[in-house]
Amino acid sequence: MTAARPRSEERREAILRAAFEVIAERGYRGASLAAVAERAGLTQQGLLHHFPGKEALLVAVLEERDRWDTGGGGASGRSGWRLDLLATLVEYNAMRPGMVQTFSALLGESVTDSHPARAFFVRRYTAVRADMAELLRTEFGERLPCGLTPERAAPLLTAVLDGLQYQWLLDPESVDMAAAFRDFMVLVGWEEVK
Amino acid sequence: MTAARPRSEERREAILRAAFEVIAERGYRGASLAAVAERAGLTQQGLLHHFPGKEALLVAVLEERDRWDTGGGGASGRSGWRLDLLATLVEYNAMRPGMVQTFSALLGESVTDSHPARAFFVRRYTAVRADMAELLRTEFGERLPCGLTPERAAPLLTAVLDGLQYQWLLDPESVDMAAAFRDFMVLVGWEEVK
Repeated sequence: MTAARPRSEERREAILRAAFEVIAERGYRGASLAAVAERAGLTQQGLLHHFPGKEALLVAVLEERDRWDTGGGGASGRSGWRLDLLATLVEYNAMRPGMVQTFSALLGESVTDSHPARAFFVRRYTAVRADMAELLRTEFGERLPCGLTPERAAPLLTAVLDGLQYQWLLDPESVDMAAAFRDFMVLVGWEEVK
Repeated sequence: MTAARPRSEERREAILRAAFEVIAERGYRGASLAAVAERAGLTQQGLLHHFPGKEALLVAVLEERDRWDTGGGGASGRSGWRLDLLATLVEYNAMRPGMVQTFSALLGESVTDSHPARAFFVRRYTAVRADMAELLRTEFGERLPCGLTPERAAPLLTAVLDGLQYQWLLDPESVDMAAAFRDFMVLVGWEEVK
């Protein structure tokens, strides 16, 4: 059964597509409301009707990215994931520095007082830690080879993903994010060192 | 042999002390040039004579923090460190959220194009990775129990420290940064799970 979607929803999706493109090409600083509005064929006023500001637009972009990256299942979409798919996602991220830069810059801002993206990130990390614990449980059962429970290893897995992104964004020549993440999989007991 | 220090150096140190206090009390957003100048008993114009802007001042604060935290030895001061001292530093950081917030917010900004703090962080992470590798070598020799070399484990150790800070700043009730870091020490082979 299909129904005509409301026009405002279509418009919203067109804005998000435009924002994805602008972010990919120009990164966080280039992703101004003006640049996104122009790409979407709207006035800035028209864009503000759908998203009240740059932070709100970028949060919507990151939510949409999470949905895409994870196939849309589960609480945050990550349930049913496997550790090796996560490694593939890190490789994919290494090919889209504009998006990783936007995520990392917004995460940095969000820890300052009353930032508009704070609620999104608090919610996101609660969901990500739960999903990572589930992923580790699927892989290793109730104990990882090192003896930690999935719940205790989940914040570490999450932290490594974020921390490596900062090191890579600052110095892509020195830091191979995908290789480093595979090394972390070795640390948690995934496989032997090659 | 002692020599009278130049007055501008003393003034610079007084500004840094004032910035430390303001950051501790009010966090990143509260650490405005105006607030720091007032605390240091200067006009904002007088402060700008020593530091050309907020980013330059905060970078100087973070450099000073690195020197203090590490006792001032080695390239970045971290050589001669041990893994258990690092765990103590994480516990200490959990008592100074304003400083951790300032570090994390500035790190986030620094990955955006041509940010004034970018060069500092690139330099810092090069030094930190080298120091962490040395620390792991002192602890484990040429191979960690998991089989990784110190050089391959160093970016992971660094990433976990930064990543946990974001999770903790966003949700201090849910994330025990010091306990999570001790869990990471278990992962790299430091000790048995307790």
